[in-house]
Amino acid sequence: MNGARSLVETLVASGVDVCFANPGTSEMHFVATLDEVRSMRAILALFEGVATGAADGYGRVAGVPAATLLHLGPGLGNGIANLHNAKRAKTPVVNVVGDHATFHKRYDAPLESDIESLARSVSGWYRSSARPDDVAGDALDAVDAAFGPPGCVATLVLPADVSWSQCRDLPVRPRARRTAASVPQDAVDTAASTLRSKSGTAILLGGTALTERSLLAAGKISAATGAKLLCETFPSKIARGAGLPDVERLGYLAEFTQAQLEGLNHLIIVDTNAPVSFFAYPGHESYLVPPGCEVHTLARSSENAPLALESLVESLAATTVSPVVSSPKRPDPPTGALTIESLAAAVGALLPEDAIVVDEANTAGIFIPGVTSGSPRHDWLTLTGGAIGQGIPVATGAGVAARGRRVVSLEADGSAMYTIQGLWTQAREGSDVTTIVFANHSYAILHMELSRVGAAGGEKAKEILDLTGPELDFVSIATGLGVPATKATTADDFYVQLARSFHEPGPSLIEAVLA
Amino acid sequence: MNGARSLVETLVASGVDVCFANPGTSEMHFVATLDEVRSMRAILALFEGVATGAADGYGRVAGVPAATLLHLGPGLGNGIANLHNAKRAKTPVVNVVGDHATFHKRYDAPLESDIESLARSVSGWYRSSARPDDVAGDALDAVDAAFGPPGCVATLVLPADVSWSQCRDLPVRPRARRTAASVPQDAVDTAASTLRSKSGTAILLGGTALTERSLLAAGKISAATGAKLLCETFPSKIARGAGLPDVERLGYLAEFTQAQLEGLNHLIIVDTNAPVSFFAYPGHESYLVPPGCEVHTLARSSENAPLALESLVESLAATTVSPVVSSPKRPDPPTGALTIESLAAAVGALLPEDAIVVDEANTAGIFIPGVTSGSPRHDWLTLTGGAIGQGIPVATGAGVAARGRRVVSLEADGSAMYTIQGLWTQAREGSDVTTIVFANHSYAILHMELSRVGAAGGEKAKEILDLTGPELDFVSIATGLGVPATKATTADDFYVQLARSFHEPGPSLIEAVLA
Repeated sequence: MNGARSLVETLVASGVDVCFANPGTSEMHFVATLDEVRSMRAILALFEGVATGAADGYGRVAGVPAATLLHLGPGLGNGIANLHNAKRAKTPVVNVVGDHATFHKRYDAPLESDIESLARSVSGWYRSSARPDDVAGDALDAVDAAFGPPGCVATLVLPADVSWSQCRDLPVRPRARRTAASVPQDAVDTAASTLRSKSGTAILLGGTALTERSLLAAGKISAATGAKLLCETFPSKIARGAGLPDVERLGYLAEFTQAQLEGLNHLIIVDTNAPVSFFAYPGHESYLVPPGCEVHTLARSSENAPLALESLVESLAATTVSPVVSSPKRPDPPTGALTIESLAAAVGALLPEDAIVVDEANTAGIFIPGVTSGSPRHDWLTLTGGAIGQGIPVATGAGVAARGRRVVSLEADGSAMYTIQGLWTQAREGSDVTTIVFANHSYAILHMELSRVGAAGGEKAKEILDLTGPELDFVSIATGLGVPATKATTADDFYVQLARSFHEPGPSLIEAVLA
Repeated sequence: MNGARSLVETLVASGVDVCFANPGTSEMHFVATLDEVRSMRAILALFEGVATGAADGYGRVAGVPAATLLHLGPGLGNGIANLHNAKRAKTPVVNVVGDHATFHKRYDAPLESDIESLARSVSGWYRSSARPDDVAGDALDAVDAAFGPPGCVATLVLPADVSWSQCRDLPVRPRARRTAASVPQDAVDTAASTLRSKSGTAILLGGTALTERSLLAAGKISAATGAKLLCETFPSKIARGAGLPDVERLGYLAEFTQAQLEGLNHLIIVDTNAPVSFFAYPGHESYLVPPGCEVHTLARSSENAPLALESLVESLAATTVSPVVSSPKRPDPPTGALTIESLAAAVGALLPEDAIVVDEANTAGIFIPGVTSGSPRHDWLTLTGGAIGQGIPVATGAGVAARGRRVVSLEADGSAMYTIQGLWTQAREGSDVTTIVFANHSYAILHMELSRVGAAGGEKAKEILDLTGPELDFVSIATGLGVPATKATTADDFYVQLARSFHEPGPSLIEAVLA
């Protein structure tokens, strides 16, 4: 076999059997291998940012890495923004990048570039396979690194000649997965004693502390001790809905977070970091923990957060305590003008059981979490790294990972345009993804930020933040990409269209024209 | 004034008065400055790859850099591929990237990333402004570096606090431009003696050796000595048409280039490199100059190539020699099936005087150069760095730089989908850009490469290179982006639609459905 086949067989044997691909000439042997190793499912993306974002979405939902297949440095460049988001989400991704043949690199051909520098900026692990015989071992190391814990982007570069040259044909022995380390007992003890004796204590949950199991444990702790439960601002995935504790997410705006943390004396952190401001603002603090508030770490990202929370439940003798959980409730179907409130009500009224919500609605989505806390159980995925253009690709990957579940992709119009090409892959794969585009024809968040940073925006500044002249027609665009689409201008229309989308298999898009 | 204003004023005073922008919060003071320094024209792109590609197109046509405005590392990441192309084109670009406030970086906020590593991979010059008082000088250095010669991508990072803090208000003194160095006399003498006495000599022209002035000089040299004129495979810009020598471009495929160079004993190189294979192939040479052929460099990219060619004309006493130039000629309007040949004939029959052709047609465009050599004078811009997704953005920037000239954007369907968002900017700016999408519903070049690299492609491999299921509808997509579009399925239709597009102001798109 050749290096390419060795790679694909090793990946498949390790459980990595989905590959989001946008290949070029240097990746053709990998592509040819798809007919030899039929259990690798390759999914074409029209743009690399779709492939990397889809791998992020897939990894978040499946808990297993997808592979990517990218073409040299420029292809990797196009994928960087969503790899950045995946890095921040700690999503396991095996990021495969083709390179020129080793003997070709010194000629500085047009596509030659510094792949390693690009890759290292987003990767927790990086290697370029030097010889065909190394590929299997390199691939096993890449998968190990990707899984973590914590998960990371593991970039494996495969030079064209390493890909096409013959290697030894040895049986692939996939490795046992590393498990997360248990937290030290004194971390549990400190947290327990703080919770028992101290007032003004909150628990800030992130990462794997937002699974159903973690949340139920945290809910018991909160019920037993009165500690407030908080959630990091941009979680990779949080389990939500009726029957689960409704943890309060820290606000995107620093002043909101500061208000949420005000008066706290102790903050117990579980698989996340102490809150900092998303951006800096003139005259404002970047570090948002109030002065005098002590920060205690219960579990780091390499440690087993669910187990740590359960150990804490035991330490507090709270095993039989009932957590406060959301009751089943849905808002009434809305009617009248289509506003960000009535749109939210329609989502709350209709969100299907076991849905996956991918949230890149930015300013226009602020009412949706509130009206879905009593919805049927669902998962919520957010924009972890702040690099917009994440939503459609992540929804695309989530749709591949979660057959039988409805993916609801909440998309601000500005953000949707970075990686709109992902809709085509949704159509090609027949994924059950409903995309809602919030059409306010503006980078609304930047209008807000313009004043928040103390900049006086005049007419030209406002013009550069407006998406008018011409207005984008998302129905046309989606239709052209093969996704059936409709436009809603009233809450009634929107409700009907959303209900229909949730009942029809395959992808669809609703352009919600906001009043 | 603050740092942002100091930057914008310095750029404008230096002649850099167009900025292709996709800003975020950290760039809001730059945005606010647009109302204070009204002579900076900011042009919004929906995606950073459009902004950087447009800056490339603008710089190639205007000969003066445009600025970009990108948001942190992920925004720069999205712009990397087209900055790679700009780097390979030696286009002057002032690449402005906003960063977090200096005091905020240590908190590792979600958008924190390694901007410098990303930027250096595509930049000939890099600096992050440390203090507001440094900004004016840094901007002058960036403009100097961008101009070169040779031109390059000069990346200037502007941290948010450097942008918003006050600086000294000193008058801006733009610097005189550096001129290209004259080539050493012995380089001219060597070339002259080679040309005088040696058979089997060719002159390979690239970069600035492809301007009208350079080509007319090269034509005289060729006429006087019998030397063959060749052009690098992917020139940044070449002057073409009736009245100019029709230089033979080296083929993309290594075996074509080898055939073109076969039998040569001497290759005189002017502002380019000795030819190498675009990709490596199993068992094939990467370096394409035939064994025994001597390579002589007349001018390097930092040197004055037009002057070097004129000096060589004088050395050869060829000043009064008439170069062999293309006669005015146009193919007949085509009729019947729409094929890559009949499509080419329509372009040849209609190409307007002084047009700018942006060529990312890949396999589908191969007949167009041949039928346009006798067209009215025009410029031809190519995919210099091999990173597809260059065409629509470069056409967008060319349209801004060249008011009154028609831009003809030749786009393969696969390539078009990387940066399709650029159409919206063309609509917003009302640019005279005609986009022709060659719809063969396939990454046709990869089907070819699959066999060329010796990989046996089966059904699954072919599927991953096909753009069907669903078919892209470019008329819908373009319409949704605000660009009027039509579909042509016969040569007659296409001819009529193309003629209409060339006569109507503003952008339009024709989806050419190839038989």
